[in-house]
Amino acid sequence: MGPRETGGRSRPGRRAVLGAGGLAALAAGAAVLTTADARTPGDDREAAAGGAVAFHGPHQAGILTRRQYHAHLAALDLAAPAGAPGAGAGAGTGAGRAGAAALLRTWSAAAARMTRGEPPVDGGADTGVALGAGPAALTVTFGLGPGFFDRAGLTAARPEALAPLPAFPDDELDPARGGGDLFVQVAADDPLVAVHALRTLQRLARGAASTRWVMSGFTRSAGGTHRNLMGQLDGTANPAPATDPAQRARILVTGSGSGVPGWLEGGSYVVVRRIRMLLDHWEGLPAQHREQAVGRRVADGAPLTGGAERTPADLDAARPDGVPVIAANAHIRLAAPRSNAGATMLRRGWSYYDGLRPDGTPDAGLLFVAWQADPRTGFIPVQHRLARGDALARYVVHEASALFVVPRGAAEGEYVGQALLEA
Amino acid sequence: MGPRETGGRSRPGRRAVLGAGGLAALAAGAAVLTTADARTPGDDREAAAGGAVAFHGPHQAGILTRRQYHAHLAALDLAAPAGAPGAGAGAGTGAGRAGAAALLRTWSAAAARMTRGEPPVDGGADTGVALGAGPAALTVTFGLGPGFFDRAGLTAARPEALAPLPAFPDDELDPARGGGDLFVQVAADDPLVAVHALRTLQRLARGAASTRWVMSGFTRSAGGTHRNLMGQLDGTANPAPATDPAQRARILVTGSGSGVPGWLEGGSYVVVRRIRMLLDHWEGLPAQHREQAVGRRVADGAPLTGGAERTPADLDAARPDGVPVIAANAHIRLAAPRSNAGATMLRRGWSYYDGLRPDGTPDAGLLFVAWQADPRTGFIPVQHRLARGDALARYVVHEASALFVVPRGAAEGEYVGQALLEA
Repeated sequence: MGPRETGGRSRPGRRAVLGAGGLAALAAGAAVLTTADARTPGDDREAAAGGAVAFHGPHQAGILTRRQYHAHLAALDLAAPAGAPGAGAGAGTGAGRAGAAALLRTWSAAAARMTRGEPPVDGGADTGVALGAGPAALTVTFGLGPGFFDRAGLTAARPEALAPLPAFPDDELDPARGGGDLFVQVAADDPLVAVHALRTLQRLARGAASTRWVMSGFTRSAGGTHRNLMGQLDGTANPAPATDPAQRARILVTGSGSGVPGWLEGGSYVVVRRIRMLLDHWEGLPAQHREQAVGRRVADGAPLTGGAERTPADLDAARPDGVPVIAANAHIRLAAPRSNAGATMLRRGWSYYDGLRPDGTPDAGLLFVAWQADPRTGFIPVQHRLARGDALARYVVHEASALFVVPRGAAEGEYVGQALLEA
Repeated sequence: MGPRETGGRSRPGRRAVLGAGGLAALAAGAAVLTTADARTPGDDREAAAGGAVAFHGPHQAGILTRRQYHAHLAALDLAAPAGAPGAGAGAGTGAGRAGAAALLRTWSAAAARMTRGEPPVDGGADTGVALGAGPAALTVTFGLGPGFFDRAGLTAARPEALAPLPAFPDDELDPARGGGDLFVQVAADDPLVAVHALRTLQRLARGAASTRWVMSGFTRSAGGTHRNLMGQLDGTANPAPATDPAQRARILVTGSGSGVPGWLEGGSYVVVRRIRMLLDHWEGLPAQHREQAVGRRVADGAPLTGGAERTPADLDAARPDGVPVIAANAHIRLAAPRSNAGATMLRRGWSYYDGLRPDGTPDAGLLFVAWQADPRTGFIPVQHRLARGDALARYVVHEASALFVVPRGAAEGEYVGQALLEA
């Protein structure tokens, strides 16, 4: 049976596919930025592998910083204030707001300690799972979903850009694995450090918020450009935004000339998509077919028009018989700058492998994580433009989706979101 | 709600618990061996982190070799020969046997190449997922379940020791995640190398065998003694079997004086247990309670009777009021050599974290993997003896179980199981 044909459906070219794997092709130009290679410093707070990444700073860590080897993404839902289900909405104050503030204060303090390689709390409450592992480049990044503002009595403060993402063609989203009031990205070079940080934040949230979903992923520990589970080099031609202030401004919110509130200046928006890959079928394709679907060579990521990994693709090149060298539906053609001028985001996702699904196929793919200053000029238009017959679309399924606003980083002595919650 | 009390049951002290987490206490003496620490060479074939571990040798790699950072455990069921469901049982020859031989030949060749950092097959069939990552200390280890011998027409050759494990008190086993005709352990320091090797073996098995279950785990990348998700140091006092020939003979099958067939001499038996930890409850316990349940300090693994990590526990020590310093039901007391003399196995498991269960609790724990020359003098008696009120038993659930016989290693030019299949 071919891909995406279960139930009699065959739909090549009908699926939206930005996410199709943190795809090499998105690297074809400047339209979409990716973070630096696994071992390339990506931020002034960057540390050597295994070192410490500062929690405090003008923007949160885990956005521009080097992608670590292990990550957990989680969403939590705030508990309704005791005795007042739904209370707080629009109130501006109340138990919901105080509870949310207390949670973010506690979380921020614990995160700052853990990123230094210290136990998250004083006393014996820590289980010691991360003892001896060092900081392991741990970062903890917090985001807020639309429901956070309602439950915290801050509906009026919710940014316009934090609106539900539009429906994209062929999405097959599971609401239980998407959305959420609070977003946590925990990433580290050591798997125990990552699990410990996630478990600690969940434990500290008890009574204030309950976990809605967790997804876990990884990158390879070898250096070089990220490679996804389809085998594609992912992020080939994209500059590190840390080195380009103009591009950085497309990733982080700036307030120049607009009404950006202080709590958001230096913040970001993050889109999370769980994109399953239909590997049983993909792996059975001839290598030439796989390379034509992408438009690049598997081995070195060079475009099919020749050169090396970072050689620009020649989209106008044709074979003697007039057929384009890079096919009309090749991913890098549809994702090229000429199709997506102006839409910019920083993709910094992880591969996941969660064993078998009930039907025996692999539960594996990409945890797509994209950061941008505004999803309306980032993920949304790119995703719409890419929903045009991408050759890779047959081999992926978008299973979950979420959008969060990411407050600016906390200064020393401050907690993430304090400027919002104590305004 | 307390642990293990769902449905009104409260059963402290009633659960079998060897597995209770690759528990530190098993390290209390010589009764159970563990492999060397994460970065300590464990075998003459050992490589530096990221290097190559030879596939060929007198015993299979992945048993005595250093535990890598990432692992996938999988079981596959052989397909029935075409037109002859159930055929081959007892026949000694037939399509089942030829098919099994062809599969193991193909697998062995691919595994040997991948462990050298090469593509598994010639031509363009490889997806390239592991390109550029190097060997990453990849090991691939194959085992055979009871059904393998029936389906391959080799029922008469099935070793007596490959009998179903007895039922242990409080097991809650899911048959769909246990058993299987073929066992594959894939482990590497790089997560993409590990996933790529597993996917490759599954692809090469297509038509000959279908995957029954897959479980994925990890160890910390920091050096020192392994620490499990309960926070316990795991394997403190156990020597590396590579350094002690007498202990090595308890792990690998030897033929001295008995009728061990040639295909098994240098082989082993592996017990695999999926042991979920009730972390929500465990993490909420006071540190003192957690340490008393184990009998060791969390921070450094020293016994509660004092000293350092490798100081022997003083099981007779009492406080002035006569209460034993190490409690009567402390794990290290029940697992001490005096309780388990003679029963020896090599535990070389991985932690797993698979997100949330439907009830919101963590799906996390230990993939217990124990190697021994004979389960009747290894896992089985130890597990029976430990089923006596272990204080840790309340915090774990044994969810899946399997036993496989592990043929000796293949020499250059040979495949694993060849001496059995071509006898």
